[in-house]
Amino acid sequence: MSTPNTIVALLHGPDRAGLVAKTSGWIYENGGNILHADQHRDMAAEIFFQRIEWTAAPSGLAADASLFKRFAETLGMTVRVADAARRTKVAIFVSKFDHCFHDLILRWKSGDHACDIVAIVSNHRDLEAAAKGYGLPYHYIPVAAGTKAAAETKQLELLDQLGIELVIMARYMQVLSADFLAKCANRPVINIHHSFLPAFAGGRPYQQAHERGVKLIGATAHYATPVLDDGPIIQQDVVRVTHRHGVNDLVRKGRDLEKIVLAQAVRWHLEHRVLVYGNKTVVFD
Amino acid sequence: MSTPNTIVALLHGPDRAGLVAKTSGWIYENGGNILHADQHRDMAAEIFFQRIEWTAAPSGLAADASLFKRFAETLGMTVRVADAARRTKVAIFVSKFDHCFHDLILRWKSGDHACDIVAIVSNHRDLEAAAKGYGLPYHYIPVAAGTKAAAETKQLELLDQLGIELVIMARYMQVLSADFLAKCANRPVINIHHSFLPAFAGGRPYQQAHERGVKLIGATAHYATPVLDDGPIIQQDVVRVTHRHGVNDLVRKGRDLEKIVLAQAVRWHLEHRVLVYGNKTVVFD
Amino acid sequence: MSTPNTIVALLHGPDRAGLVAKTSGWIYENGGNILHADQHRDMAAEIFFQRIEWTAAPSGLAADASLFKRFAETLGMTVRVADAARRTKVAIFVSKFDHCFHDLILRWKSGDHACDIVAIVSNHRDLEAAAKGYGLPYHYIPVAAGTKAAAETKQLELLDQLGIELVIMARYMQVLSADFLAKCANRPVINIHHSFLPAFAGGRPYQQAHERGVKLIGATAHYATPVLDDGPIIQQDVVRVTHRHGVNDLVRKGRDLEKIVLAQAVRWHLEHRVLVYGNKTVVFD
Amino acid sequence: MSTPNTIVALLHGPDRAGLVAKTSGWIYENGGNILHADQHRDMAAEIFFQRIEWTAAPSGLAADASLFKRFAETLGMTVRVADAARRTKVAIFVSKFDHCFHDLILRWKSGDHACDIVAIVSNHRDLEAAAKGYGLPYHYIPVAAGTKAAAETKQLELLDQLGIELVIMARYMQVLSADFLAKCANRPVINIHHSFLPAFAGGRPYQQAHERGVKLIGATAHYATPVLDDGPIIQQDVVRVTHRHGVNDLVRKGRDLEKIVLAQAVRWHLEHRVLVYGNKTVVFD
Repeated sequence: MSTPNTIVALLHGPDRAGLVAKTSGWIYENGGNILHADQHRDMAAEIFFQRIEWTAAPSGLAADASLFKRFAETLGMTVRVADAARRTKVAIFVSKFDHCFHDLILRWKSGDHACDIVAIVSNHRDLEAAAKGYGLPYHYIPVAAGTKAAAETKQLELLDQLGIELVIMARYMQVLSADFLAKCANRPVINIHHSFLPAFAGGRPYQQAHERGVKLIGATAHYATPVLDDGPIIQQDVVRVTHRHGVNDLVRKGRDLEKIVLAQAVRWHLEHRVLVYGNKTVVFD
Repeated sequence: MSTPNTIVALLHGPDRAGLVAKTSGWIYENGGNILHADQHRDMAAEIFFQRIEWTAAPSGLAADASLFKRFAETLGMTVRVADAARRTKVAIFVSKFDHCFHDLILRWKSGDHACDIVAIVSNHRDLEAAAKGYGLPYHYIPVAAGTKAAAETKQLELLDQLGIELVIMARYMQVLSADFLAKCANRPVINIHHSFLPAFAGGRPYQQAHERGVKLIGATAHYATPVLDDGPIIQQDVVRVTHRHGVNDLVRKGRDLEKIVLAQAVRWHLEHRVLVYGNKTVVFD
Repeated sequence: MSTPNTIVALLHGPDRAGLVAKTSGWIYENGGNILHADQHRDMAAEIFFQRIEWTAAPSGLAADASLFKRFAETLGMTVRVADAARRTKVAIFVSKFDHCFHDLILRWKSGDHACDIVAIVSNHRDLEAAAKGYGLPYHYIPVAAGTKAAAETKQLELLDQLGIELVIMARYMQVLSADFLAKCANRPVINIHHSFLPAFAGGRPYQQAHERGVKLIGATAHYATPVLDDGPIIQQDVVRVTHRHGVNDLVRKGRDLEKIVLAQAVRWHLEHRVLVYGNKTVVFD
Repeated sequence: MSTPNTIVALLHGPDRAGLVAKTSGWIYENGGNILHADQHRDMAAEIFFQRIEWTAAPSGLAADASLFKRFAETLGMTVRVADAARRTKVAIFVSKFDHCFHDLILRWKSGDHACDIVAIVSNHRDLEAAAKGYGLPYHYIPVAAGTKAAAETKQLELLDQLGIELVIMARYMQVLSADFLAKCANRPVINIHHSFLPAFAGGRPYQQAHERGVKLIGATAHYATPVLDDGPIIQQDVVRVTHRHGVNDLVRKGRDLEKIVLAQAVRWHLEHRVLVYGNKTVVFD
């Protein structure tokens, strides 16, 4: 959890001497107190990564954030700066499966995920009553053969209108088009895939896993990109299965994995702990 | 560990009523005492699987084993029967990596693996001194471009001559030909692949894993078949990695995985716990 | 999941030759078809354990169950027999924490737990609205200094009246008295303790774990007995923590463990997979 | 692995603003390049912890290390500084069990543990031949009833004489006296205990675990202190067991845990990643 009046910056760029000293020096000189500072160097690529979190005077918080950004850019860094207390606006996309849906909402209600869930979007009506029971607006946007492009246009209008900053695909059973994702460039989309990627990408991964006879099944939370199931991986986990488990058992056991892996990825994203570069993530946990 | 004078039978065949009663009834009527009996049913395929272990009078052990086999075949079962105390003759194939090599030999010396290691076979001389230090015969059979077929012929002659019943590829860095494997039909070959198959089959799996940015790396022990890295999986495990781990760290962390996964698979095989059907295994652990 | 018209028997008693043959023979002769049969021998104690599941004609199911029980008792076995399709009547005890409460109810609603949840019992009003939202009767029985005995009497009357067969303490924050538990002799009570027992029994286990500086925290589901946190363990699991995690993080991370471990234990209990002997369990999973 | 010409500093002391800026600023001004810098704050205790690793000119390495130490002390920090390339002198204490012994030596030979193993010390002769096979000096110091104090005096003389900086108890089956440990104040002693501490401290932990019926067994690597099995925990891990596993199986399965947990703790210690405060560790991994 972030303390009030803290700023979080995520930066990366070409490595060079003195970067830690310079960013921490700037914060100290500007009256900030560093709470957390994590660095990483990709030795092969010679890239420097940093997540740094510091307290600032409440009055000067916005100004400090933008001054720091400008300063870090003079060091050649690509920078994202956030007021840690500001709550990200989230839309959850669902279809018929409800386990990730309930899980995300209950975690949010218990205070684990510091965000504002402002919309549930679905291509089915199945979870409408449950969403309303939680007091959440439900947007039913059906997708039929031939209407996908129109549906996506509607979805994008809604996301724009509500100022959505993060889309969570909580077992939403439609592939988002490259066009949709391109229009979400500044609005990350987190997906949960029910396999240990890159194994069993695409459809029916539990069926695929059962057929191959693997001894562990997995789940993968990743940022969605135009290439299906190929985006930067945020978190993965596995659970043991045996020959005694049929496909239905895999589905059941996988639900717990999906919930936990997706929730963990969402939490890290909301806390500004995930930095994407190339097709990988650096997770400062 | 098996108690002395015990017989182990592995059977599978079309499911039908009364199989458990009939096999256990036969053993009881013939004076045996069942120590372990595990069944599995593949409900979709309607196949029955059983591993059953019982004590017999020392004098009648061989006779009982062969009588039981004949009886179970009358039930439509495919049967393998073994004297549990008989030690399987094993050859270990190695190249230059020595971690699985030392691990298997030390487990064997400590009594974990009830087998006879009768040959170390290698395409390099690197581990010759170590093998001799353990008192084990070392067979250097180099493999060069164009000499592979000849080398495999030599290997097969050696395996035949020594009566080898199990080949363990302990990071042996040559792909065995389909021809070699066909000639090993009654002599299983266990391989350790350093990834969570089916992800990252083929060469340089740690490099592949690092490039994809996975958050867990794995190892897979499987029976070798003519299709590379595609045989029935016996055991798999994974370990967590982060962005901080370079390829070398993956290699280092993976070594522990490889050792444990391979040793577990070998142990199960030696204890007659693994039954292959189709491209999968039933492991009665 | 059990198929319709199946009987499950759990038996244990002094080991002797022919037990597998006799129980499976009886079932075969009586027209049953064995679906699953698992045995275990405690070699040191010379006790035989078995879980056996078979189909019977719908008409004869009750009769067969009671005949089998009588037969197995002639073999010296202690036997419990159940109609696999019969749903156990469950009461969930809660206080203020709601994570296990929601988790159990959502699993039940999704069909994972084949039981009837017929009462939520609580010493607080906090979860009343949520219970009613799920359509579940909520029994508020406050417990104050000096009123515990009276409250337990009320609870027992309620359990008797509703025919409750299993009590789940879903983070119910009162220690049940030895007297209460004695009166629940035929009505098991499953508790979730938020540590890896026997480490950190008693109060505030996360605080204790944090103070000791352990690198893994755990959760334990066990049958409640008069000795606090000492009953037969059904399931345990752990999750990694580091020096970066404060007590609040342990509490948060522990919630997922508690949910999964408790749900797993409840599932095994409902499927008649857990056999208690001495202070231990045999879990036929 | 540390790059050549790097310095590692571990510091901790009262938290205050500007510590990151000051230490990193000093290094930058003195021509160093920071490779890794990890910080931790114990918010409750208001203590700051840091591990910082930087390159220095080969010629000035020793001078820089000592200058930095003096500088950090002016900030109120307790500081340890090491030349990352300097190899720690290690003695391994063993009795009869050989699994951790072989494991540590093979890892060291493979380059995983950058130290000098200069002595094997044992109260038995069992591993003498194996040690000599590895080319390692073996010091047989028997311990009998009444001779323990004399034996410890001999051990301490040996450790002093050889300049030993780390003692590893690789299943050494004698409790070291408080007096011995006091005399090792500047020479840490790492012990592997074969349970998930604080559960099953003291003797025969696998027997204790079996009797309690736990579903996971563990191993714990910790610094030895005068209170038995109570020192700061460096690393722990667990593995699943079932009712099918007897005490001997627990012993066998535990061996892999013990090897891996001990090796990991030793590796972290050798890389100057472990900082002890109070009875806990901060592990900068």
